[in-house]
Amino acid sequence: MLATISEICVHPELHDQKKVTIQGWVTNIRGNLKIMFIELNDGSSFKNLQCVLKSDLIEFEKTENLAIGMAIEISGIFSNTPERQQFGEILVENFEIKGHNYSANFPIQNQEISLEILRQMPHFRHRTRLFRVIMKLRSSLFYEIHKFFSRQGFINFSAPILTSNDGEGAGEVFIVDDEKKEFFNKKTTLGVTGQLHAEAYALGFKKVYTFAPTFRAERSNTRKHAAEFWMIEPEVAFYNLEQIIELAVKLVQKVIKSVIIRNKDEFTFLEKVGDKNLRRRLIQFCDSQVSQISYEKAIELLLEHQDKFEEKDLFFGADLKTEHERFLAEEIFNSPVVITNYPKALKAFYMHQNDDGQTVAAFDLLVPGIGELIGGSQREVRYEKLLERMHELKMNIEDFQWYLDLRKFGNPGSSGFGLGFERLLMYVTSIENIRDVIPFPRTNKNILM
Amino acid sequence: MLATISEICVHPELHDQKKVTIQGWVTNIRGNLKIMFIELNDGSSFKNLQCVLKSDLIEFEKTENLAIGMAIEISGIFSNTPERQQFGEILVENFEIKGHNYSANFPIQNQEISLEILRQMPHFRHRTRLFRVIMKLRSSLFYEIHKFFSRQGFINFSAPILTSNDGEGAGEVFIVDDEKKEFFNKKTTLGVTGQLHAEAYALGFKKVYTFAPTFRAERSNTRKHAAEFWMIEPEVAFYNLEQIIELAVKLVQKVIKSVIIRNKDEFTFLEKVGDKNLRRRLIQFCDSQVSQISYEKAIELLLEHQDKFEEKDLFFGADLKTEHERFLAEEIFNSPVVITNYPKALKAFYMHQNDDGQTVAAFDLLVPGIGELIGGSQREVRYEKLLERMHELKMNIEDFQWYLDLRKFGNPGSSGFGLGFERLLMYVTSIENIRDVIPFPRTNKNILM
Repeated sequence: MLATISEICVHPELHDQKKVTIQGWVTNIRGNLKIMFIELNDGSSFKNLQCVLKSDLIEFEKTENLAIGMAIEISGIFSNTPERQQFGEILVENFEIKGHNYSANFPIQNQEISLEILRQMPHFRHRTRLFRVIMKLRSSLFYEIHKFFSRQGFINFSAPILTSNDGEGAGEVFIVDDEKKEFFNKKTTLGVTGQLHAEAYALGFKKVYTFAPTFRAERSNTRKHAAEFWMIEPEVAFYNLEQIIELAVKLVQKVIKSVIIRNKDEFTFLEKVGDKNLRRRLIQFCDSQVSQISYEKAIELLLEHQDKFEEKDLFFGADLKTEHERFLAEEIFNSPVVITNYPKALKAFYMHQNDDGQTVAAFDLLVPGIGELIGGSQREVRYEKLLERMHELKMNIEDFQWYLDLRKFGNPGSSGFGLGFERLLMYVTSIENIRDVIPFPRTNKNILM
Repeated sequence: MLATISEICVHPELHDQKKVTIQGWVTNIRGNLKIMFIELNDGSSFKNLQCVLKSDLIEFEKTENLAIGMAIEISGIFSNTPERQQFGEILVENFEIKGHNYSANFPIQNQEISLEILRQMPHFRHRTRLFRVIMKLRSSLFYEIHKFFSRQGFINFSAPILTSNDGEGAGEVFIVDDEKKEFFNKKTTLGVTGQLHAEAYALGFKKVYTFAPTFRAERSNTRKHAAEFWMIEPEVAFYNLEQIIELAVKLVQKVIKSVIIRNKDEFTFLEKVGDKNLRRRLIQFCDSQVSQISYEKAIELLLEHQDKFEEKDLFFGADLKTEHERFLAEEIFNSPVVITNYPKALKAFYMHQNDDGQTVAAFDLLVPGIGELIGGSQREVRYEKLLERMHELKMNIEDFQWYLDLRKFGNPGSSGFGLGFERLLMYVTSIENIRDVIPFPRTNKNILM
């Protein structure tokens, strides 16, 4: 019977002394002329299965060309070994190399390879243990996010990616057209947010979310920026700033907890090779009340440590840099922290203008190691206020008339946020470079494969 | 207590005689000077909740400006009415119009509006009953697909959308760059498939899938083509053609069944306004063995009905048009049908070349009403065969060297397919135009909002 390693290691006792067939890839080989041990991984689990080949059962000539990375199919009797470190092993009766192997020089061997070198081979690096773990956690986190929203009664809504208006009002957009440069009837860009369209859908469905690729023609080559990344954007009608902050915190806490519960082996590995306190730190965050302070207060707190920053010019109105955001989360709060009510000049046009005339009902969730993980706001529901702000920013009103029109009919106000999926994955795994949590990362001047 | 209509209508008896608060939108108003009935929908359910306002409890002046489409919040005592057609009603004690309503001329009123007119207002049309149903089913189908793959042990893998090579070898691609036309280090397009990259990830993870937006600079303005749509692409190492066909059929049957079970009210509505046999037809397909014939046999069958087609030139090597595909599914098999082993000239370069020298191990799943729903294949795992085919097609080998290299190390062969999400949704809902199953559709010369 064809089985997976995952099935076997969940209930090894049920497979004890049974004949199983496994298809997978060789991750290690050792032995002598009489007995060989092959470590096999089939992608279903982080764990390998040890396969024992004995020369009296198997013709060892067949194994002569065997090398790490090769695809094989083996059959044999599984023995559960609860007394040993590994959960069991297979005494191989049949053994077959599958497919073609033109060379034994598979780039992924068992010696250490630097992350930088692995980035040059995105088509192979997931066959190392570290990247198997990262990509498994990526997949697990991905699903938990969909599950969270589904259980909370959200409608998954597909915002368009090809758009004729630029949600954030920033200039860093990609332009799209076909070869003849005449496909669309207007200038078309890759959307930087699904929010404006999500607002339309929140009116009527109340709770909607999008989870889709997002694009920024981002020239800064930092370890947390990519030209293509996935973003989670919920939008909820009738919600104000406090309610959307509560949702944001709940989402992050819930999906992290679920991923930790479902991926014990992967976290054990990450803690072995990296941050020993990874799970302790994450669970501490999941179980605690998240602190919340105003931007104004954040500036005050940062000013007390002015000397520690490269950018020392801190005042009401200053844009917080990553160093400031990280200092708040890492040094001052030692935990994720929510900052609210930013000066309106720092934020997008669509945010609810507070009565003080200076700030908007925005929030950022800052986390240790990364800085901004989530940015969100209560939206400006007042037609005139919104229009006034758009005029101030010299925006093209015509392009956004449909968005303004959402304020005309049954709009009780809405709030939402954007959560960078890869940044969340970086936070969960403690992986420091966004290029290492995306299968085929795209950055400025860099598009491999 | 703030409740949703969905919560109440699942267990109305639990809410009987309890005070509830509901936030939602007015979908209908009738009544007189003493009693008013408001139909309220809050997006959580297809069903509306009837709210009864009596002039001795509520100041009717407050309702004077009330109009369809407005957002309101009501509180009152819910009464379960199992004896009546509706599941219950609320006797309103408090009533508040939320947000701003600048005009009573909400474009969605209760009279019939044509689909064509609704297409001009994608930001409002989901507030009609038909589009509420379609988009609810879209969300439900979306989640069931992720659930299916998760339960089957697949890894969700994000293929890059920005690519420097064109998977299908077709010319219909969008070109991407920033304003200065120098963002990337090579010509960059919006990917038309995630398959090539998924093949890399299937090596090591065995079972992977992507589910993401896909783009085609498709100039043909048909009812089933869009420039932006979502595609589901699984790829499984060790699988051959027969195994991947089995997965494709199982996926479609399973998700359709789940969606039918979970969305009874929505299907009841679709059957009332459209195809009365919708569920019967879908379930019949889900419960039956799907027929499978070769392309060669399909041509033979079609030749017997040559007169019925606009394109009568049918021969071994002819590209099947939608009319032929639909005829096979609708008239000959009266059910979805799988066609295999197409002539290699009709299919992409990466498909396994059969021993006959003429055909490739490809398959299409054709369904009534649409034609091709799924296209897939076993991939060519033999390096030389693949290279030879790429030379024949005068492809730029250098661009695809990484893809060729996947054949060098532990490649047991793999198979996969692409399933157009919106086409599946069209099949499930019986909606005939792809523009009506995408929130904000994008087609040639047409980008609204």
